Amino acid sequence: MDSCVIPLRHGGLSLVQTTDFFYPLVEDPYMMGRIACANVLSDLYAMGITECDNMLMLLSVSQKMNEKERDQVMPLMMKGFRDAAEEAGTSVTGGQTVINPWIIVGGVASVVCQPNDFIMPDSAVPGDVLVLTKPLGTQVAVNAHQWLDISEKWNKIKLVISREEVEQAYQEAMLNMATLNRTAAALMHKFNAHAATDITGFGIIGHARNLAQHQKNNVAFVIHNLPIISKMAAISKAGGNLFGLLQGTSSETSGGLLICLPREQAARFCAEMKSSRVGLSGAVGQDGGAGDGQQAWIIGIVEKGNRCARIIDKPRIIEVPYRGSVVSAQEGSHNNASPTEVQLTQQLSQ
Amino acid sequence: MDSCVIPLRHGGLSLVQTTDFFYPLVEDPYMMGRIACANVLSDLYAMGITECDNMLMLLSVSQKMNEKERDQVMPLMMKGFRDAAEEAGTSVTGGQTVINPWIIVGGVASVVCQPNDFIMPDSAVPGDVLVLTKPLGTQVAVNAHQWLDISEKWNKIKLVISREEVEQAYQEAMLNMATLNRTAAALMHKFNAHAATDITGFGIIGHARNLAQHQKNNVAFVIHNLPIISKMAAISKAGGNLFGLLQGTSSETSGGLLICLPREQAARFCAEMKSSRVGLSGAVGQDGGAGDGQQAWIIGIVEKGNRCARIIDKPRIIEVPYRGSVVSAQEGSHNNASPTEVQLTQQLSQ
Repeated sequence: MDSCVIPLRHGGLSLVQTTDFFYPLVEDPYMMGRIACANVLSDLYAMGITECDNMLMLLSVSQKMNEKERDQVMPLMMKGFRDAAEEAGTSVTGGQTVINPWIIVGGVASVVCQPNDFIMPDSAVPGDVLVLTKPLGTQVAVNAHQWLDISEKWNKIKLVISREEVEQAYQEAMLNMATLNRTAAALMHKFNAHAATDITGFGIIGHARNLAQHQKNNVAFVIHNLPIISKMAAISKAGGNLFGLLQGTSSETSGGLLICLPREQAARFCAEMKSSRVGLSGAVGQDGGAGDGQQAWIIGIVEKGNRCARIIDKPRIIEVPYRGSVVSAQEGSHNNASPTEVQLTQQLSQ
Repeated sequence: MDSCVIPLRHGGLSLVQTTDFFYPLVEDPYMMGRIACANVLSDLYAMGITECDNMLMLLSVSQKMNEKERDQVMPLMMKGFRDAAEEAGTSVTGGQTVINPWIIVGGVASVVCQPNDFIMPDSAVPGDVLVLTKPLGTQVAVNAHQWLDISEKWNKIKLVISREEVEQAYQEAMLNMATLNRTAAALMHKFNAHAATDITGFGIIGHARNLAQHQKNNVAFVIHNLPIISKMAAISKAGGNLFGLLQGTSSETSGGLLICLPREQAARFCAEMKSSRVGLSGAVGQDGGAGDGQQAWIIGIVEKGNRCARIIDKPRIIEVPYRGSVVSAQEGSHNNASPTEVQLTQQLSQ
């Protein structure tokens, strides 16, 4: 499970909490703070929990930074963290900062829940489909961006991508990592999700396997589609299968939720993800234009099996456009299901 | 406040939590784990909270350790942490480990409380006395132990202490740091404590000032006695006022609680601290022999004032013997109040 669930001594309540901390992987301290916060909360969201009672911030300031650098960087990182917490309807009360060779940023998220507030991630059944709520490829995008300045690395990938595209992919990855999985958590309840996890350091296949192992039923997860930030698959291939992106082993940071949903609910789940932010703290559903809602993809199926997960031999790569180009790509489209979703849904119905 | 208190959406309950992490300061990994755990829990105990619903362990493994070193050191540190958590009647469920240049160890302690479970640290009144539940001097003891191998440092202090005494003082400091403040937390309720804090990085005067600032009444804390691990005051003087131990600025790790108690309750508080472990999870009070209970000292008074704290010009230094010698020092004594306690109590009664 992504969070620990502790039964309390008080009237059927449980304390659910999680912690995560890591090293900066983007250059923008503010965005780094947002990403760290989204990443911590994601473990709650993976259990369908939409509220958080408190966050603690864990920081380590690098001893290698001079005072001026510290005074510029750390407040921005803290602001990013706090802003994301506020967006999540919670706040940061408490924490700890130390000095260390490396910068560390992370936190703790805690919530006291009633039994219906969370969804135990163990009830997938054959016939479910797998939905993913953010594209893959953050590790490749972040690394490619660093390689802009390392000619030996850049030479390996420059035939398949321009410098401008690397910059766009990096921005796209950063936005995705900073996006809360909170809408997905709310929709898990609405559409009767059977199990979920969030995709982080072990890549999609690692987390899919882990989720499969924890199922009560004899199921196997089969992934047919890999939604990937545009051009990141090409970079991975050009670099000699970099990070195993197409095998699903590339690390993600603050990735999407991988959710097992009843087949008949999945398309509507994806449509609502895209169209609105719903069900959170009385927020009115917005008619989401592009960039307002979030895309989600049906990426696979749940079969009978022995609690394992695999990606099919030649998965379909879904090139997920950079946000700048999303608007034009989707203008005029009133069909909430993408062609690929429709295709897989049709395939599944056959 | 040492912990954050978050009102919950459920029936008057509050989530109280705290986090702390730091770098190893003793050589024994198992004891380091115990100390880290005691240090985290101490923030709850300072609020009179005796139970903890969950702990998370936060670890960073040093990249400079080879695999064999890691496999030896880290499990011991984790075992120490878990054992201390078990002694505290809680358990460690969850946590995070990263690789880093330095070892880091710490954790998060969380508890869901009813209003009566905790004592807000803001109600000291003139006439209260100040009680301290562990001796000072851990920083001096730990550093002196390191100086055994640094001749230039050792030469400065060797006139006032033997190598064997340094070793004993270090052991004593380690035992004190690894001791839970849980008994003190339980007795805070029994003896109607008005406020408390735990003594850590800012030294006794730093934490006393901080506590004074948070009082509702116009009070000042005046410290008359400094209980210090034996010979540490002499080392501090020999080293040229090392760490400001006698001014109360020397850092402590996992130090005692500083508690404002009604004057008429303080001696009984100290006596019960020494004689037994009471009131915890139905544990039967033990007739504590030396080393079983913990010593506590009346160290000062609460006067009218403007929310400040000070140590008097020539505080009485209470030399706290090393545990090995405690037994003989106390044998035959059936008077639970130490001479110094009696003296201060008499002084206060004049």
